[in-house]
Amino acid sequence: MSLKFAFIGAGNLATHLSLSLKINNYQVVQVYSRTKNSAKILAEKLDCAFTTSTKEIVNDADIYVIALKDSVFGQVLPQVDFNKKMVVHCSGSMPMSVLEKYTENVGVLYPLQTFSKNREINFKEVPVFVEGSSAENEKLLLQIANQISGSVSVLNSEKRIYLHIAAVFACNFVNHFYTIAYNILTSENIPFEVLYPLIKETAAKIQITEPVKAQTGPAVRFDENIILKHLKHLEGKKNYDELYNLISKSIFEHHQKRN
Amino acid sequence: MSLKFAFIGAGNLATHLSLSLKINNYQVVQVYSRTKNSAKILAEKLDCAFTTSTKEIVNDADIYVIALKDSVFGQVLPQVDFNKKMVVHCSGSMPMSVLEKYTENVGVLYPLQTFSKNREINFKEVPVFVEGSSAENEKLLLQIANQISGSVSVLNSEKRIYLHIAAVFACNFVNHFYTIAYNILTSENIPFEVLYPLIKETAAKIQITEPVKAQTGPAVRFDENIILKHLKHLEGKKNYDELYNLISKSIFEHHQKRN
Repeated sequence: MSLKFAFIGAGNLATHLSLSLKINNYQVVQVYSRTKNSAKILAEKLDCAFTTSTKEIVNDADIYVIALKDSVFGQVLPQVDFNKKMVVHCSGSMPMSVLEKYTENVGVLYPLQTFSKNREINFKEVPVFVEGSSAENEKLLLQIANQISGSVSVLNSEKRIYLHIAAVFACNFVNHFYTIAYNILTSENIPFEVLYPLIKETAAKIQITEPVKAQTGPAVRFDENIILKHLKHLEGKKNYDELYNLISKSIFEHHQKRN
Repeated sequence: MSLKFAFIGAGNLATHLSLSLKINNYQVVQVYSRTKNSAKILAEKLDCAFTTSTKEIVNDADIYVIALKDSVFGQVLPQVDFNKKMVVHCSGSMPMSVLEKYTENVGVLYPLQTFSKNREINFKEVPVFVEGSSAENEKLLLQIANQISGSVSVLNSEKRIYLHIAAVFACNFVNHFYTIAYNILTSENIPFEVLYPLIKETAAKIQITEPVKAQTGPAVRFDENIILKHLKHLEGKKNYDELYNLISKSIFEHHQKRN
């Protein structure tokens, strides 16, 4: 018999992870979400049951996967009867130990990717980091992770938070700068598409060249003339001048120390 | 007879642009750089002459391409005898008008890409923006640009600076965040390579989804719990906590206004 999973949470991560388990022949028996629509949509994709009540969460799953916002762990989890089964969360910045009050067999399965519901992801290419509360639990999580991903490592909670922080810089903050570039261009009636080749090359280059050595632009050359012109053109555009100034200084400091 | 180009500057941009002109059967007759080694290396690639003296720059080129740091335009250009020929610069943030004191026929040819000397670029995929001081000059520059690139537009100096600023955010600042992610990971002995799929997906996603809608992570959810944890872990690591804080606030503000 294959392992039975219950999903607590039906967001972007829950969607991609549960579907990936299903296509690798694991059973997902139930989805819980506070939001009926989210629970229903995911349950339909998985062809399984759903509930919006913590009291109705099944107590015979083999593994409960917690894919909730960190901030609601404390509201939701005390209401669930885990029946001493294994409980695993998927959070980058929560230590594994937060689960220990609910059951003895706990672990973490952290997929390092940005998930959007309507965008397909090849899970085989998503690096997955696991941690288990015992050698046996860790072995089981490694086995599962290796079924769904081609890149699996063991990583403890202390290190995982640094991985999450690095991902915030390399993904969330990067995406915000795409947003700022988008806003600057569209306010001048220049299509954002003109940046696609630059964005692609910037992301590709660091796979060949260490990022600090790939740095180009006015800040690394300390081209004060350009920097001041840009700051002037950013005046009155949200806090873009403040961001521009702080990041330019940061770039310059990194490179000054290298010279 | 094909047009004869002289290059003033032998940096990353000059290298890629001059080589692209050459493979499209334009003649590059001479390279000038203050740095002998740079001038010599590029001239060898182009199979042409080079000089480190502004006085020795030929006066019979058809088009002089200025690929210098903005800040040295004023030192170098007054020493050159352009012999009333066409002079074109490649700078995002300098108006075309800075060239008008040297000759009547001026223009701009601005390739929007990040160039490193040792990384090959398919110039056909580089968007090129041109501007000319007359309809005739603009037509000539369009013709040349269309030979080397598959994506050519006319853009005036006022708009071009915004394009440059957008590129600074989407490329230079993004690359700096790759550097920060690299530093955070390597100080924990986690290989930077684990971020490649995330970086690639982040850059790819915005070609399908408007970047503001692609935003994920703790800041957009305003997950204060995670944000404070991350800030604590960044204490003492250069100015990373200050950057983290300012950018998280900026993300949150952008999304608050959307809701």
